[in-house]
Amino acid sequence: MTTIDFWYSIGSTYSYLTVMRLPQVAAAEGLTFNWRPFNVRHVMVSQNNIPFRDKPQKTAYMWRDIARRAERYGLSPVLPAPYPLAGLVTANEVAVLGMQEGWGIDYTRATYRRWFELGEPAGEEPNLSESLREIGQDPNRVIERAGSEEIVHALASSTADAMTLGIFGSPTFAVGHELFWGDDRLDDAIAWARRGP
Amino acid sequence: MTTIDFWYSIGSTYSYLTVMRLPQVAAAEGLTFNWRPFNVRHVMVSQNNIPFRDKPQKTAYMWRDIARRAERYGLSPVLPAPYPLAGLVTANEVAVLGMQEGWGIDYTRATYRRWFELGEPAGEEPNLSESLREIGQDPNRVIERAGSEEIVHALASSTADAMTLGIFGSPTFAVGHELFWGDDRLDDAIAWARRGP
Repeated sequence: MTTIDFWYSIGSTYSYLTVMRLPQVAAAEGLTFNWRPFNVRHVMVSQNNIPFRDKPQKTAYMWRDIARRAERYGLSPVLPAPYPLAGLVTANEVAVLGMQEGWGIDYTRATYRRWFELGEPAGEEPNLSESLREIGQDPNRVIERAGSEEIVHALASSTADAMTLGIFGSPTFAVGHELFWGDDRLDDAIAWARRGP
Repeated sequence: MTTIDFWYSIGSTYSYLTVMRLPQVAAAEGLTFNWRPFNVRHVMVSQNNIPFRDKPQKTAYMWRDIARRAERYGLSPVLPAPYPLAGLVTANEVAVLGMQEGWGIDYTRATYRRWFELGEPAGEEPNLSESLREIGQDPNRVIERAGSEEIVHALASSTADAMTLGIFGSPTFAVGHELFWGDDRLDDAIAWARRGP
């Protein structure tokens, strides 16, 4: 069975669409996705890739496009969601720890839901602690561990791996070295994974 | 019958995919598309929207993504095509004149084919004259008329209309005021047009 790597950053707007629908798609398609949180802001700043800041037309379109696609997926976000996120790094450090401990996907979905559906920015309070409580994790323990040298290093290391692979945005689906950027490329990634090497 | 406005610039790479498949899609779907050439470079420069310059990772992905989608559409481009185009303005002035005279779609397809399949940049020689000869137009007459004050003004006016509508990139499909950006949003635009007001 081919595994598709799902590279994402909590902080990416379009990744909301993928995060909320991916478990259902995976089950329906009988596929495994390997969730890989990384720091997309670090990648984009270092590549001078600034898609929305000071671009009101493109930003307005982005929210409208997300609204239309969310409706198609049966999601009910309140848009625009707070953006950009001040707590992007913290949010993804918690996700990295969660992937190590087995609750990373649940946390990612809980924090995105609060961010997009309740208007609470991810990576800061109250979203951070409430999302962790919701999935049965102790916020104090998790937040302390997420800031440890080991986890800070693990996120930096994943981010470096993403850059080596040629990733420049979130979400990106990787089938081996073949990259598919954007929630709207999920079907293409699945078709590619199916056709085999 | 709803008409979908197809806003495009000769010079946009992804627009190759749309230009080459749109007549077939229109016929299969029983829809009318109103081809609207505009100067996307003017729009992007004025909005400080620079997606590919000095962004090698994103540029490499763009060509790979176009190659995969072209294959799906049965197209055979030689990639990467020459980019960016020095003759972008001229190419679109000729297209504007062609739309007035009824040969604009044929010219757009001929010049894109030469650009993407023969490696000849659009908007300059030999692409310009050869594309016009191929569709039965006299290059001398057309090139002189395309540089006239009337046509220069018509392109500027279409570009202003695009900006008023909120367009920031090419291709964009517009169903009334609803915008769909990118060749990959054609299906969404068609579905939107079908569902009516």
